[in-house]
Amino acid sequence: MHITQWQHIFFDILETLGTIVFAMSGAISASRKNYDLSSVLLIAFAVGNGGGTIRDLLIGALPVFWVQNVSCVILSALTGFVVFVIGSQLKFRGKVSLLADAIGLGVFAIAGALKTLSFNLSPVVAVMMGVLTAVGGGVIRDILCGDPLLIFKPELYATTALFGASIFVLFQLYLPQFTLLGGGFCILAIIILRLGTLHYGWHLPTSAFFNKHFIRKK
Amino acid sequence: MHITQWQHIFFDILETLGTIVFAMSGAISASRKNYDLSSVLLIAFAVGNGGGTIRDLLIGALPVFWVQNVSCVILSALTGFVVFVIGSQLKFRGKVSLLADAIGLGVFAIAGALKTLSFNLSPVVAVMMGVLTAVGGGVIRDILCGDPLLIFKPELYATTALFGASIFVLFQLYLPQFTLLGGGFCILAIIILRLGTLHYGWHLPTSAFFNKHFIRKK
Amino acid sequence: MHITQWQHIFFDILETLGTIVFAMSGAISASRKNYDLSSVLLIAFAVGNGGGTIRDLLIGALPVFWVQNVSCVILSALTGFVVFVIGSQLKFRGKVSLLADAIGLGVFAIAGALKTLSFNLSPVVAVMMGVLTAVGGGVIRDILCGDPLLIFKPELYATTALFGASIFVLFQLYLPQFTLLGGGFCILAIIILRLGTLHYGWHLPTSAFFNKHFIRKK
Repeated sequence: MHITQWQHIFFDILETLGTIVFAMSGAISASRKNYDLSSVLLIAFAVGNGGGTIRDLLIGALPVFWVQNVSCVILSALTGFVVFVIGSQLKFRGKVSLLADAIGLGVFAIAGALKTLSFNLSPVVAVMMGVLTAVGGGVIRDILCGDPLLIFKPELYATTALFGASIFVLFQLYLPQFTLLGGGFCILAIIILRLGTLHYGWHLPTSAFFNKHFIRKK
Repeated sequence: MHITQWQHIFFDILETLGTIVFAMSGAISASRKNYDLSSVLLIAFAVGNGGGTIRDLLIGALPVFWVQNVSCVILSALTGFVVFVIGSQLKFRGKVSLLADAIGLGVFAIAGALKTLSFNLSPVVAVMMGVLTAVGGGVIRDILCGDPLLIFKPELYATTALFGASIFVLFQLYLPQFTLLGGGFCILAIIILRLGTLHYGWHLPTSAFFNKHFIRKK
Repeated sequence: MHITQWQHIFFDILETLGTIVFAMSGAISASRKNYDLSSVLLIAFAVGNGGGTIRDLLIGALPVFWVQNVSCVILSALTGFVVFVIGSQLKFRGKVSLLADAIGLGVFAIAGALKTLSFNLSPVVAVMMGVLTAVGGGVIRDILCGDPLLIFKPELYATTALFGASIFVLFQLYLPQFTLLGGGFCILAIIILRLGTLHYGWHLPTSAFFNKHFIRKK
C-alpha cells in the first residue's frame, strides 16, 4: 500500500509519542526498583523501542528503525534521565506509569499496523504487528524489571490493541483517504477502553469461567 | 541444496502439524494458569510459531514465514480457541500437553533442518536450526507461563532433537532421494525417544555426577 | 567506513576470544546449577554467541555471523564441554566466571562497535551496538540460569562497556590509523574498570540516592 506524505508525518508523530511514553513507563518501573542511572537509561531505551524493534525484525525492515535514525534512541535516553532525576519526587508514580502505558498501547498499535501496510503485507499481518508493537515494550519492561507480565493479567490489555488495530486496518482498506481521522479515532478508542478497564476492571472470561457457565451441564 | 516439489509438500505438512501441536501445548499451559481468552490465543500463537520465527530470523529468511503466509497464524489461533473452550473438560491435560510437545519436537527438528539446507547453509548450521526450531516454542511457552524451563530439566529433551536432526541431515547429504522416508524415520525416532524419556526417566550425566564417577580419584 | 585487512584480523581475534570467555562464563553458571551435558553445551553456545547475534539481527547483517561461519559454534561447544568435565574440580568457579565475564565485556564492546562502523552506521549506533554485544550474552545467561540479572546490579557493568565503546568510536573517527592501539587500550580500560568495580564496589547513584542528596530540600 502506498503511503502518502501526510501518513508519513502522522506515523513519525505516533512513533515519537509512543517512544516517549513507553520510555517513561519503563524508567518509572526501573526507578521504583531503585536501579542505578545506567540501568534506568537502558530500560527506558529497551521499553521505548522494543515493540517497534520486534515489528521491524519480523517484517524484515532491517536495519531496524532506530539504527537508521538515532533520534528515538536519544529521545528515550533523555526521557529516562528526566524520570531518574525527578522520579522519586513524583506522586502517583504507579498511576502515571499506567497512563503512559495506555497511551503507548494506543499509539503503537496504530503505528505498527500502518508501517506493516506500507510494506504491502496482508491486513491480518498488519493487525498482528499492531498488537505486537503495542505490547512488546511492556513485555520487555516486565521481564527486565522482574514484574508479573501485565499482558497476562485477567483484564483487557492486548485485546484493546487488537480491537483498535483491526478497526484501523479496515479503515485503511476501505477509506484510505481518512487515515488521520481513523487513526486518531482508533487511538482514542484504545486509550479509553484501557483506562475504563483500569477503573472498572473489565475482563474477558477465563477457560474455567467459560466452562462453568457455557459448557458444563450437571 | 535444491528442494524438490515433494520435499516442499513434506515441509508444509510438517510445519502445519508442528504449529498445531505446539499451539495446543501452549494453550493448555496457559489455560491451566487460568489465563483469559486473548492471553490463551496469544500464547498459542507464540508457542506454535516461535521456533520457526527464531530460525527464520537467524538464517535471514525475512519476512518470517507467518508474515508471508498467514495460515499458520489462523491455525494456531483456532487451536488456541478450541483448547480454551474444551480445555478444562479434558482429563489428563498435562499428559496431552507433553505428548503434543513430543510430536512438535520431532516434527519441527526435521522441518527446521530441511528449510536451512534449502537455503544452502552448512550441515552443522542445519542441525543447530533443527534443534532451535524444535525447542524454541517450548522455551517461549515456559517463559510466558512462568514455568521452569522444560529444556533444562535433567532428562533427554534438546538431546533427542539434536540426535534426530543429525541423522536426518546425514540422510539428506548422502541419500537425498529418500527425504520423506528419512524424515519420517527421524521424526518417529525423536518422538519415541522423548516418550521413552518421559516414561523411564532417561537422562544425561550432570557435571557433578560425571565428576564423581569418572574423574575424582580419592 | 572501510575496514582494512588488519582491522579484520583484529575483529576476528576479538570475536573468537569473546566467544570463548562468555561460553566459559555461561557453562560455569549452568554447571553450578547442576544442569546436564546438553544443557551446559546449549547455554555455552547461547551465551558465547548471544550478544553478537542480537547485534547482527538489529543491524541487518543476516544470516547472523555464526550461520556464515560455524567455527564460533564449535568453539563455544568445546569450551562448554571442557567446563563440564573439569568444572566441579575448579576452585573459585564464581571468581573465574566473573573474570571471564569482565574480559568478554571489554572484547565484545569493541568488536561490536567496530563491526557496526564497518556497516557505515552512525557513531551513536556503533556505541549502542558495542554495549548490546557486550551485555547481551550475560543477560541471556542470567535469564536461562534463573539468576538475578548482573546488568541491573547496583555496580558498574553496562556503564563500563558504554564508556569504553564511546572512547573507541571517537578513536576510530579521528585516528582510524590506530585501531589496534585504541581498541586494545579501550578493552584494557573496560576490564580494569570492571575488576575495580568488583573489588571496590564502585557504583552509580540510584534515583532515590540522587534525589536525597541533590534535589530534596527540606
